[in-house]
Amino acid sequence: MSSENANLNNYGFPTLKNDLILRAAKGESVDRVPVWIMRQAGRYLPEFREIRTKQSFFELCQNPQLACEVTLMPIDRYDLDAAIIFSDILVVPQALGMIVEMLPTKGPSFPAPLVVPADLEKLNKNCDVKKELKYVFDAITITRHALNGKVPLIGFSGAPWTLMSYMIEGGGSNTQSKAKAWLYKYPEESHELLKILTNVIIDYLVEQVVAGAQLLQVFESHAGSLDNQLFTKFALPYIRVISKLVREKLRERNVEPVPMIIFAKDGHFVLEELSQSHYEVVGLDWTIKPKQARQIVGESITLQGNFDPCALYANRDDLVKLTRDMLQKFGYKNYIANLGHGIYPDMEPESVKIFVDAVHKISQEMIQNDANK
Amino acid sequence: MSSENANLNNYGFPTLKNDLILRAAKGESVDRVPVWIMRQAGRYLPEFREIRTKQSFFELCQNPQLACEVTLMPIDRYDLDAAIIFSDILVVPQALGMIVEMLPTKGPSFPAPLVVPADLEKLNKNCDVKKELKYVFDAITITRHALNGKVPLIGFSGAPWTLMSYMIEGGGSNTQSKAKAWLYKYPEESHELLKILTNVIIDYLVEQVVAGAQLLQVFESHAGSLDNQLFTKFALPYIRVISKLVREKLRERNVEPVPMIIFAKDGHFVLEELSQSHYEVVGLDWTIKPKQARQIVGESITLQGNFDPCALYANRDDLVKLTRDMLQKFGYKNYIANLGHGIYPDMEPESVKIFVDAVHKISQEMIQNDANK
Repeated sequence: MSSENANLNNYGFPTLKNDLILRAAKGESVDRVPVWIMRQAGRYLPEFREIRTKQSFFELCQNPQLACEVTLMPIDRYDLDAAIIFSDILVVPQALGMIVEMLPTKGPSFPAPLVVPADLEKLNKNCDVKKELKYVFDAITITRHALNGKVPLIGFSGAPWTLMSYMIEGGGSNTQSKAKAWLYKYPEESHELLKILTNVIIDYLVEQVVAGAQLLQVFESHAGSLDNQLFTKFALPYIRVISKLVREKLRERNVEPVPMIIFAKDGHFVLEELSQSHYEVVGLDWTIKPKQARQIVGESITLQGNFDPCALYANRDDLVKLTRDMLQKFGYKNYIANLGHGIYPDMEPESVKIFVDAVHKISQEMIQNDANK
Repeated sequence: MSSENANLNNYGFPTLKNDLILRAAKGESVDRVPVWIMRQAGRYLPEFREIRTKQSFFELCQNPQLACEVTLMPIDRYDLDAAIIFSDILVVPQALGMIVEMLPTKGPSFPAPLVVPADLEKLNKNCDVKKELKYVFDAITITRHALNGKVPLIGFSGAPWTLMSYMIEGGGSNTQSKAKAWLYKYPEESHELLKILTNVIIDYLVEQVVAGAQLLQVFESHAGSLDNQLFTKFALPYIRVISKLVREKLRERNVEPVPMIIFAKDGHFVLEELSQSHYEVVGLDWTIKPKQARQIVGESITLQGNFDPCALYANRDDLVKLTRDMLQKFGYKNYIANLGHGIYPDMEPESVKIFVDAVHKISQEMIQNDANK
């Protein structure tokens, strides 16, 4: 541990060499646009598929050393401006006592999902987050050290509605109709479940920062299954209380709060509300028009996204052209480049390099051109 | 055949008693808001599940007498203002020579989807629509007679991009990433496929009107997998040419064109463009805010939708309250009530009755109240 870094927020972590994404999140000037990729440590990487032949998905998550190794894979390959800890949003339902398996083609599966409100009794509501999810915090601390200050480390959690919908659907769903049925049939019990989740998520995010996370993203992946009315009642209040209480609790522990990102996929209808929810950054899926988003959220929010993940299938020239187009629409101020969704497993690793390098090169030119005006 | 009805558009069909939906589609005044439900003849009805124990899904579609029977099921049960012919958007890929099966839990499945552009050669591009889809036209004519003028009969087709994505994905997909990869990798061949589909769809819709369809809906169910740029290139031009040429071809045959509905699910980002595509009606999914939609499309377009399908899970009082809320937001002018998506198979049939009756009762009160002012 270096002697100059001795506060609670800092286990003597190496000095940060690239703070681009933190500067962008705070609305500070940058000399190039920072870029990272949702699911950047994932199945599209041969080295990830290799490690998965030996370990199940959740074994990887639960082994801090391996989670660190996987987290660093894309950082070693590409000139990314952030690492994101290798984990899964469903570790929170696991901490609450639910069994979650990752099935080869089907994805996540709960053998015993919540069916009726009485099933809430089965949850370990007052779980000790620090103990149950210790492996995540350990992974974060180890990874922050291993990164050696190269780029910041992002921690994350699913948002309450998204986790609730997985816990009731028992896996992926096109309609989330079982979970939505709860919202209409059992509004009180739905709020009860959402509150249980919110409390765990707040502790979970706080502990991630204490362990070394330098930025936090909250994934409301199932925003689009809700309408404005349901989102306003069952999602937004919890998203807001999370950003508020994570900061408060960190301050109580004398830990400096970190910037927070909210990404509500398909949440085009609540962009304005999200931008007023005390997250520094609002993530956008690929259906959102950059200029319209900027109009809606105002000048002070940083936007993140929203390259069509499938645009990485394009040839080099088209890919660079599309990247330039995105940068021209968003501009380089208050902006973090990313895809509009997690990267798909069949993507060519080389395409990621083209994209990342194009973001840097083109944005650097844009910034220099403006400076020379 | 009655002597006063002898033109090509009219096989001596019974006089229409309820033209509410046609009036609403054309922007004319109504004394109550018309309502129908996407997938109103479907698995949520016990009588439909009963008939399905004896016939496969596509056997039903291909048997005009049975298709008629199924189409009438919800009309017999509920006070709906339109029937929609029982069929499936995937009959068009079938007409082009592709095999499509309906698997019990998985949904539609193509044993031999399109993988590479060379597979386009396998399609029966110049298929004789009138022959290949004769069973649909027969079903429409029989049903129009069987309806006995009770309500108008809606015909429909999938839009080109949505059908293309099924033909490449080989079934349902969360991301449509294989089909989208075509748009980026093989733009020319994608346009070729989209043109083939567009030509078939135009003939298909024209023949449906000739056979007796009184309103047409085009389903762009996979709009949300595209971004603005892809939609503008690969979806919108074909949607536009369809509405233009269907009308032209009908006029050439001395058949009066019928009102047309475009429903692009998750297409929030192209509402304005869709409203300028010569469809009288624009369908909305449940994520669209009614007042915002009205602002975007202007006063002359009729809006259709957009009750959350899951709101039918609510108890009677809440369901009526939510219906009232929807009607108050849309108003009763230029409006057709519907769900924002097809009804789900586990819905209580009684909930549909509550919804349909509430639309009528509440809208009638609204109209009378305004008339008495």
